[in-house]
Amino acid sequence: MSGVGVGRLIGVGTGPGDPELLTVKAVKALGQADVLAYFAKAGRSGNGRAVVEGLLKPDLVELPLYYPVTTEIDKDDGAYKTQITDFYNASAEAVAAHLAAGRTVAVLSEGDPLFYGSYMHLHVRLANRFPVEVIPGITAMSGCWSLAGLPLVQGDDVLSVLPGTMAEAELGRRLADTEAAVIMKVGRNLPKIRRALAASGRLDQAVYVERGTMKNAAMTALAEKADDEAPYFSLVLVPGWKDRP
Amino acid sequence: MSGVGVGRLIGVGTGPGDPELLTVKAVKALGQADVLAYFAKAGRSGNGRAVVEGLLKPDLVELPLYYPVTTEIDKDDGAYKTQITDFYNASAEAVAAHLAAGRTVAVLSEGDPLFYGSYMHLHVRLANRFPVEVIPGITAMSGCWSLAGLPLVQGDDVLSVLPGTMAEAELGRRLADTEAAVIMKVGRNLPKIRRALAASGRLDQAVYVERGTMKNAAMTALAEKADDEAPYFSLVLVPGWKDRP
Repeated sequence: MSGVGVGRLIGVGTGPGDPELLTVKAVKALGQADVLAYFAKAGRSGNGRAVVEGLLKPDLVELPLYYPVTTEIDKDDGAYKTQITDFYNASAEAVAAHLAAGRTVAVLSEGDPLFYGSYMHLHVRLANRFPVEVIPGITAMSGCWSLAGLPLVQGDDVLSVLPGTMAEAELGRRLADTEAAVIMKVGRNLPKIRRALAASGRLDQAVYVERGTMKNAAMTALAEKADDEAPYFSLVLVPGWKDRP
Repeated sequence: MSGVGVGRLIGVGTGPGDPELLTVKAVKALGQADVLAYFAKAGRSGNGRAVVEGLLKPDLVELPLYYPVTTEIDKDDGAYKTQITDFYNASAEAVAAHLAAGRTVAVLSEGDPLFYGSYMHLHVRLANRFPVEVIPGITAMSGCWSLAGLPLVQGDDVLSVLPGTMAEAELGRRLADTEAAVIMKVGRNLPKIRRALAASGRLDQAVYVERGTMKNAAMTALAEKADDEAPYFSLVLVPGWKDRP
C-alpha cells in the first residue's frame, strides 16, 4: 500500500489493566488516533477502554464492536461459527470504511494484540489491504508474575502456556514435561487443574493469581487456596529455574 | 520490611530495544531512581542502558555490574559456577549497600525482568531483605511478532517457548506437540533448528526474526533464508491459530 489518502490501522496492546503499564508508543498512538475501535460485550465498554480513558483526542470517533448475543448457542455449533464469522467480517468492514476515508484507526486489545488478542480477527482481514502497525502490550501473565515477584524462567528453561480447558490427562502430561508453565482460562477448570498439577508433582510450586495488576489483585500458593472459586481470567503460574547460581 | 529509612529495589523491564516500548511506569521509575544498576560485559554498557538514555536524573549514581571474564572456562565447569555465583553475590551486596543507605535502586533488565532476565539474580538475593517492585517489560519475542505482524496464538492454542540449545530430537518432538512455538537462542543452532522444524512438519510456517524492534531489524520466512548466519539473539516464530473464524 502507498498509504496516500488511506488511513492506518494500529493494533494497540493495552496491557494487563494498570494504565501506567501502557507503553509510551501506545500512549502516543492513542493521542493521535481519529477512530477508536474495540470489541466488547453488549452494554459494556470493556477493560481495554477503561485503561485508555483520558488519553484520547476530544473529537475522537468511537467504534465499539459488540459481540452478538450467543449464550443460547453451543460454541461448537455451526450456527455459532457462522454468526461469529459474519460478525468479524462486518466489524472489519466497519473499520475498513474509516481507513478508506483516510482516518487512523486504533484498535484496543487487552494484553498484547497478537498474543490471544481480539485484535487478531481484524488484523487477518485488513493487513493485506491497508497500512498496519502493531504496538505490543504487556501480557496478563507478565503482569501477574511481576506483581507476584515470581521468577518464572531462566537460562534454558522450557515455558509452556496451556489453556485450563484442556483435558485433565493431557494437562498433566504437559505439566510433567516442562520446566515452567502458565495455565490460562482457569475459572471453573480449577479443580481439574489442581488434580493435573498434583498428578505431575507440580502442585506445591503453583501460584494462583487473580485480577493481576488490577487494584483488587490477589495471589496465593495454590496448595493453600481453600476454595475452588476463580474468575475466568485468573491464572496459575508454575515457575522454573531449578538450578540457581 | 517497614521501608522506613530503607531504599526500594525496582526491577525495570526495558523491553526489546525501542525506547518507546518502555512502559509509562518504567519511565517514571527511571526518572526518580537514585542509583541505576545493570549487568554488562566488561567495557560495554549494554542495550538496556542505551534504551534509557535521556530518562535519568542528572545526579544519578551508575552501578554497572560487569560479568567476570569467563570465556576460557567451560560453562558446565564447577569453577565457572563458583565464579558466577560469587559475582552474583557480590553484585547483590553492592546493590544492598545503596538500599540500606535509603537509596532507590533501579535495575535494568532487557525485555521482561522475571522472564529470562538478568535482574532475577538480584531479585532472589534481595527480595526477602528489602522492599521490591518489578515493572514488567515487553519481551523480545513479543517485539518480534508485533514487528512481523504475525498472529501467534489464539483461543485454546498451546504455546511452547523453547531454547535453540536443546537436542535436535527433543526439539523436534516438542515442535510436533504444540500449536505455536518461539525458539530462542538461535545463533549457531540454526541448522539444527531447521532440521527439527522439517522433521516435525513445521518448517513452512516458521518465521526468522533478527534484531526485532531495533532499527536494523530483519525478518523472513525461514524456508527462504538462504544462509545459516544468525546472531545469538535472533528468534524463530512458529504461529498457531489454525482454525480462524
